[in-house]
Amino acid sequence: MKAQVLALAGGVGGAKLSLGLAHVLPADALTVAVNTADDFEHLGLSICPDLDTVMYTLAGVANPETGWGRRDESWTVMEALGQIGGETWFRLGDKDLATHIERTRRLRAGESLSSVMRDLATRLGVKPALVPMSDDPVRTMVTTADQGELAFQDWFVRLRCEPAVKSVRFAGAEKARPHHALTALDGLRGIVLCPSNPFVSVAPILAVPGVRAALDGAKAPRVAVTPIVGGQAIKGPAAKMLAELGHDVSALGVARYYRDWVDGFVLDAQDAGLAREIESLGMKVRVADTMMRNDDDKRRLAADVLDFVDELAVSGQHS
Amino acid sequence: MKAQVLALAGGVGGAKLSLGLAHVLPADALTVAVNTADDFEHLGLSICPDLDTVMYTLAGVANPETGWGRRDESWTVMEALGQIGGETWFRLGDKDLATHIERTRRLRAGESLSSVMRDLATRLGVKPALVPMSDDPVRTMVTTADQGELAFQDWFVRLRCEPAVKSVRFAGAEKARPHHALTALDGLRGIVLCPSNPFVSVAPILAVPGVRAALDGAKAPRVAVTPIVGGQAIKGPAAKMLAELGHDVSALGVARYYRDWVDGFVLDAQDAGLAREIESLGMKVRVADTMMRNDDDKRRLAADVLDFVDELAVSGQHS
Repeated sequence: MKAQVLALAGGVGGAKLSLGLAHVLPADALTVAVNTADDFEHLGLSICPDLDTVMYTLAGVANPETGWGRRDESWTVMEALGQIGGETWFRLGDKDLATHIERTRRLRAGESLSSVMRDLATRLGVKPALVPMSDDPVRTMVTTADQGELAFQDWFVRLRCEPAVKSVRFAGAEKARPHHALTALDGLRGIVLCPSNPFVSVAPILAVPGVRAALDGAKAPRVAVTPIVGGQAIKGPAAKMLAELGHDVSALGVARYYRDWVDGFVLDAQDAGLAREIESLGMKVRVADTMMRNDDDKRRLAADVLDFVDELAVSGQHS
Repeated sequence: MKAQVLALAGGVGGAKLSLGLAHVLPADALTVAVNTADDFEHLGLSICPDLDTVMYTLAGVANPETGWGRRDESWTVMEALGQIGGETWFRLGDKDLATHIERTRRLRAGESLSSVMRDLATRLGVKPALVPMSDDPVRTMVTTADQGELAFQDWFVRLRCEPAVKSVRFAGAEKARPHHALTALDGLRGIVLCPSNPFVSVAPILAVPGVRAALDGAKAPRVAVTPIVGGQAIKGPAAKMLAELGHDVSALGVARYYRDWVDGFVLDAQDAGLAREIESLGMKVRVADTMMRNDDDKRRLAADVLDFVDELAVSGQHS
């Protein structure tokens, strides 16, 4: 087996960079560990939004417009569900529903989430190893200024991230066991924190007991790719959350948040002016075009990230 | 409330006559009590084939070609499920799946089957009262000559009724409580055993404790409509089962099976020659065209059945 790259990913941004990495790495050289704290039970089904976004993206069946769900999707079940009074605020396409139905059935039969996802991903033709951060349930809970504590998807989808966030916690994290891919880090080529939301995509992975310690002790370079460009999130509420949680709404704010866990930071060219200040946090900076508009962009960014990882390895500045 | 007609129904034949009765009766004068012993858990979902066939038929959304499922149906979820290795031998259409998903969610939340079905049926615009024979699980088990005991849908759908049947039992029936519509029979205008399979559609309803006694004591005329015409079943394995279970493969065989519970038997015109022998069992016979090819047929047969019921009531020959 080739020296592995371990990518930590949330939803859309993580999926895109993972696809880029999958394109430029040998098939057996990438493991993508995915946030599961967005997971929830809905309509009696086990929904794993981030795992599915990464799986569909790596399988080439993701919906390019929404970033979530499957391409060429239809909505017949949702329409029929609305007709009989079911909940339709969380949109599940017909093809996508097959994933939830099969996963739910197998989880209820006692199979682990990692086993189910490995099989589903293989069936869809995914080559990299796709693993949940844990087989145990961890659930992001968002404390809001106006509406108290909300389950993540209530806040994220139903309320469209509108209520201001005061704090975030990961219910169940303290008892969760990490996937071994997140703790058995010897011999890795590098660890990549994908451009995902720091607070609700990456932080839950780091909150699983043993993961921070493993990252602290990792010999491989640890590199984060900024999810913030020009003070804006590419997608989702990262910028809004940076502000509401008292951070600088910039790549610098993200770099500060990650300072204890990363050796290198990939900064967008638009934000090159922040490089010096980020380096003063004790990490190296690589300036790159981090916008992933198409597959070429994803490949190019992935190649830049790997080049940066290898440079950090050679310079030994990551330990 | 008008004097009620109580129809006992299984799947397609029961659904058709129920629709005919719904057309010729006032909206609040029909209760259809449906077999639930075909119900099963599949793909983690609670499937109720007979209830849904009757519901979709009464709602005008049934698939006229298959007799089960919904019209204008699509199969996107099933195709996607096949792609990821899920079981596809029991075909569930996209619109139909919404019913199963919503029902399963509500049953798991603790709601009774009769409550869920009442609401789903109302949402779909069904006017008659549609009730399960029981809120408790009853499951038809088929003992076959070659393959031992099989769950009903395994035999019925997966094995296409091919294994010869030695006996049938209704697991759980002894502990099931009947829906009150099946035991509170005072003031009924009549009781109709629809042209459903005697052994796996009507017998399970009669097997729920209290139902036979209630029918025995019923003051209203009890009428069965033959599911066998010219020695053949209109649909399904009724004729095959009559033979395998040692009955005469004819309307006479059915009439003998029902002799303890019915006052009148509706015989198809093709089988008029059997009238005398059926009457010798102690029941009245009405010869009619029992083939329900279209809605006019259903209405006409329903009107014939009701006329027969009222005639039996007047003659007092049903007590």
